Amino acid sequence: MKSDKKISVPVLRRLPKYYRHLEELSRQGIEKISSKDLSKLINVTASQIRQDLNCFGGFGQQGYGYNVKSLRDSLAEILGVTKRYTAIIVGVGHLGQALANHTTLSRSGVDLISLFDISSEVVGSEVAGHVVKNISQAHRFCQENQVDIAILTLPKSEAVTVANLLSDAGVKGFWNFANTELTLKNKEASVENVYMGDSLMKLCYDISDKGQSL
Amino acid sequence: MKSDKKISVPVLRRLPKYYRHLEELSRQGIEKISSKDLSKLINVTASQIRQDLNCFGGFGQQGYGYNVKSLRDSLAEILGVTKRYTAIIVGVGHLGQALANHTTLSRSGVDLISLFDISSEVVGSEVAGHVVKNISQAHRFCQENQVDIAILTLPKSEAVTVANLLSDAGVKGFWNFANTELTLKNKEASVENVYMGDSLMKLCYDISDKGQSL
Repeated sequence: MKSDKKISVPVLRRLPKYYRHLEELSRQGIEKISSKDLSKLINVTASQIRQDLNCFGGFGQQGYGYNVKSLRDSLAEILGVTKRYTAIIVGVGHLGQALANHTTLSRSGVDLISLFDISSEVVGSEVAGHVVKNISQAHRFCQENQVDIAILTLPKSEAVTVANLLSDAGVKGFWNFANTELTLKNKEASVENVYMGDSLMKLCYDISDKGQSL
Repeated sequence: MKSDKKISVPVLRRLPKYYRHLEELSRQGIEKISSKDLSKLINVTASQIRQDLNCFGGFGQQGYGYNVKSLRDSLAEILGVTKRYTAIIVGVGHLGQALANHTTLSRSGVDLISLFDISSEVVGSEVAGHVVKNISQAHRFCQENQVDIAILTLPKSEAVTVANLLSDAGVKGFWNFANTELTLKNKEASVENVYMGDSLMKLCYDISDKGQSL
């Protein structure tokens, strides 16, 4: 399997979707799937799937289709799900608590190791097995511990300052729910900005008269 | 402005991003923006932006760029943000409460009109100005009230049953956070499945050695 090739962002954005479906198939005990059935399930053309997987050396066998478990494992390896990453959550409101308790983290290979908040109502309480610390301790915590990812569920106004601070302390990735595009001083840091509203707007369009007439 | 043309899904997925950035520019008091600056800001090529907006008749003026407010308003109209939609939340855990209190809803033109849960700990409590009702009342509520969108933040195992029930009662759109691909009996209903883990996996890849070497 070639994994040192430059992979385009659109391909990378599709891989988690493939992985998700293959994981589900595997859970259902399905061992192989034809490229046609996989295409239907994932809602991506068979040729697109083939092209995407060819970036990593290709997987399917003519006339056989895909071996579910083996393709899932290869995608897990490519995506780094088999590695373990450590994460902290900064901002322990409802969204922070929802993410702390969500299977998404562990299924992506991410271990939550601490949570931080500014509010005295939350600091000291236990969330997902961790005692929430004061946000003033976050910088030092990241210096003293290996923290790969900071999950930012704090107000927009504070997100940039906190992210720059944590990036200085060695955090490499930011999963940002602060509804603002994070631009960090440290250009080596990676940021995924999550805008939940985008998919809601798409839905509003779909149920509108315009969407219905498509 | 032509809006009766068939618009592809990739274009539709980019529009909320354009809208979001234009709204931000407008808030900052910026009146016009060159196509080059807009492209840099949005991280989409100028020619792609032009092509996307041409689906609706085009907007920019050669040598002037885009009028921020007017383009924002046109996108708002296309996306249906200027319309009001009604929504209920089914599942009032942390994620449900986060969404109930999030500006995302109102900014997308969506008014929350009720919330439902199964747990006696939550039913009867007030969230975002609404008393949480028992989930057994949801079907009837949707029959008696115009409910455009159901926001599903309930466990996977219950999502399909609840969604089919509400779809029968007239709900047209489902914003689904149940981490499962919803396939409804009513093919007219629209579904947006939200998989938060996908962007986390992309982030894990980015911070991995493979991502760093791109």
